Amino acid sequence: MKKLFKILLPTILVIIWNSPDSSGQPGRHSFISPEVKADRTVTFRFLAPNAKEVKLSSEFLAEPLSMTKDSVGLWTIITDPVKPDIYPYFFIVDGIQVSDPNNTYLFPNERFKRSIVEIPGDPPLLSEVQKVPHGYVTYMYYKSKSLDLIRPVLIYTPPDYNNNNEKYPVLYLIHGMTDTEETWFKVGRVNVILDNMIAQGMAKPMIIVMPYANPLPALKENNGKIDMNVLNTDYFSKDLINDVIPFIQSNYRVYTDSFNRAIAGFSLGGRQTLAAGLGNPDKFAWVCAFSPAIFSNELENNFKNSYASAGALNKNLKLLWVSCGKDDGLYNASVEFTTLLENKSIRHKTFFSEGGHTWMNSRLFISEISKLLFQD
Amino acid sequence: MKKLFKILLPTILVIIWNSPDSSGQPGRHSFISPEVKADRTVTFRFLAPNAKEVKLSSEFLAEPLSMTKDSVGLWTIITDPVKPDIYPYFFIVDGIQVSDPNNTYLFPNERFKRSIVEIPGDPPLLSEVQKVPHGYVTYMYYKSKSLDLIRPVLIYTPPDYNNNNEKYPVLYLIHGMTDTEETWFKVGRVNVILDNMIAQGMAKPMIIVMPYANPLPALKENNGKIDMNVLNTDYFSKDLINDVIPFIQSNYRVYTDSFNRAIAGFSLGGRQTLAAGLGNPDKFAWVCAFSPAIFSNELENNFKNSYASAGALNKNLKLLWVSCGKDDGLYNASVEFTTLLENKSIRHKTFFSEGGHTWMNSRLFISEISKLLFQD
Repeated sequence: MKKLFKILLPTILVIIWNSPDSSGQPGRHSFISPEVKADRTVTFRFLAPNAKEVKLSSEFLAEPLSMTKDSVGLWTIITDPVKPDIYPYFFIVDGIQVSDPNNTYLFPNERFKRSIVEIPGDPPLLSEVQKVPHGYVTYMYYKSKSLDLIRPVLIYTPPDYNNNNEKYPVLYLIHGMTDTEETWFKVGRVNVILDNMIAQGMAKPMIIVMPYANPLPALKENNGKIDMNVLNTDYFSKDLINDVIPFIQSNYRVYTDSFNRAIAGFSLGGRQTLAAGLGNPDKFAWVCAFSPAIFSNELENNFKNSYASAGALNKNLKLLWVSCGKDDGLYNASVEFTTLLENKSIRHKTFFSEGGHTWMNSRLFISEISKLLFQD
Repeated sequence: MKKLFKILLPTILVIIWNSPDSSGQPGRHSFISPEVKADRTVTFRFLAPNAKEVKLSSEFLAEPLSMTKDSVGLWTIITDPVKPDIYPYFFIVDGIQVSDPNNTYLFPNERFKRSIVEIPGDPPLLSEVQKVPHGYVTYMYYKSKSLDLIRPVLIYTPPDYNNNNEKYPVLYLIHGMTDTEETWFKVGRVNVILDNMIAQGMAKPMIIVMPYANPLPALKENNGKIDMNVLNTDYFSKDLINDVIPFIQSNYRVYTDSFNRAIAGFSLGGRQTLAAGLGNPDKFAWVCAFSPAIFSNELENNFKNSYASAGALNKNLKLLWVSCGKDDGLYNASVEFTTLLENKSIRHKTFFSEGGHTWMNSRLFISEISKLLFQD
């Protein structure tokens, strides 16, 4: 049997691999994109024989770069060496944004389609898959009574979870606006970061729960009469407290005291983190807002109850963390917020990094707080 | 605290929600696409103010349909009522294929980017998420010694798996050419189909393992000197037998006898199924090829060892199944293959459906074999 399938069928192979798809456009072709070289230059390729202009746009570029077309209509660009990290990118084809058809790594998002390119570091970054014990990411559904919906949730379990009977602390980790429950996994690489940090003794083994924090479209479809304001954190807070947490506690071996429960989130998820976290200081001892979607003109009003309960916060919280990139449009509001916390004597930590409102910063922030979480 | 975040910020909201992204193209906008109505018509929308022509292409259409542009550059089409099912689709924007930026459901694939639209049935289809107990899908990494690579694999565990100490049978389920380890999950909806079939008593609870069956690009990057022929099933067979199966057996409560081990696959995965399954009749008692990528001119040669071992196959196999759509370009080869099996007195079942080389048929085939697998 060993030679059963060894006979090559090069003609058939070539026909299938290069055959045009149903639209008549070649959909299967054998070039590689993106191609990351050892010198950290990257070659991007996009087949578009009829396009007049193709550009590459990415968060590692200050502005989109024009690509060059060859005689068969393959557009190419080779970049300068890129700083090791993971970047979203897309092509702009005659003004239309297109993800890279040849790249399986996509940015999960409700509103745009972008591809992901990874530039390895030397030594490897925390976000690179390395030869260490790996945890798992599990896709589950739960019944949300608060929302009257079946909702998706992703759960990271650390490497040793299946090999013992111990209980674990839990981090509830929230995505940004227009992201989905998959974004912290696929773009944030939180499972890979934690695998590496746990292997190096940099973080305590923990379970990470990634809910889908935007129930508005599903609620609208189900009911019709709902408040579609995305800055309203009530629906998600109720779902998290009344449904997600009990679901996790009945399906996983987890501690249920507040010391062993953390919440963190990026952008709109940072706002949701502050609402659910500061709103329930008896439930979360660790509250971490990454580049939170908060605004100068609302800080006094919307957080006044938090300021009033400074004593309770200082007593119950092990960590209130606010981080933001210095080029982020939300940076000033974060600075103002932490100044207010300072003035009200609410204990907190700040972490202001280079860069903007990006997932490069999100990964940096999760790495930083993972060193602190659940440490005595 | 209840009213903490209730103050609306409509101005800020509107600015963020409608703000152009980094390319200057409006990336966040509030229209819905696709919008599936109760009458099963679907409205598709795509914003492209500068495009000259936008078409909708989908496997529920005989040919692409032209969309109509309004005064702000939003292209729209409302379809006729669509037969309940799940369909891939994409837009053709001035000749370029584009997935739907507003739809989070994407078709995982190495070579093209398509979106997915679901038309609910009444009563609901097996592929629809219903209010039944749900199993889990887990993303794992394993170390493949055969390939010298860290590889991804997805595992479906049925609803009761975490609530008992029983062992389960295992189906190894392989995707098609240019698909990924995610395609049976995201497009095949195999977890949802099995949840529903188990709830209705139509299928035995089983674990389903979905490996990534195309190691060629990673091997090429790692080594350089490899046979890049996609029809060569050797790499994958070795990985499956020597690495995937032992990994599953050491991480899950599964039976390890051949009666409790099945293999199935679609397209190139159907070919890999026949190679690994018929090549190891001591290991798999259930071998199911869906629309297999086999060809008329190779059947006698490439399967002659199988024919020679008809006795062993008939003795060991509980089910050898070949299915194909009658409009599939691979249909004739499937018919010829089953005729040869007939002539060689190798016991098998055939299932020839309407339609073509589609995932609508893949879902039908997995539903059909799930009724048979692991039944005495």
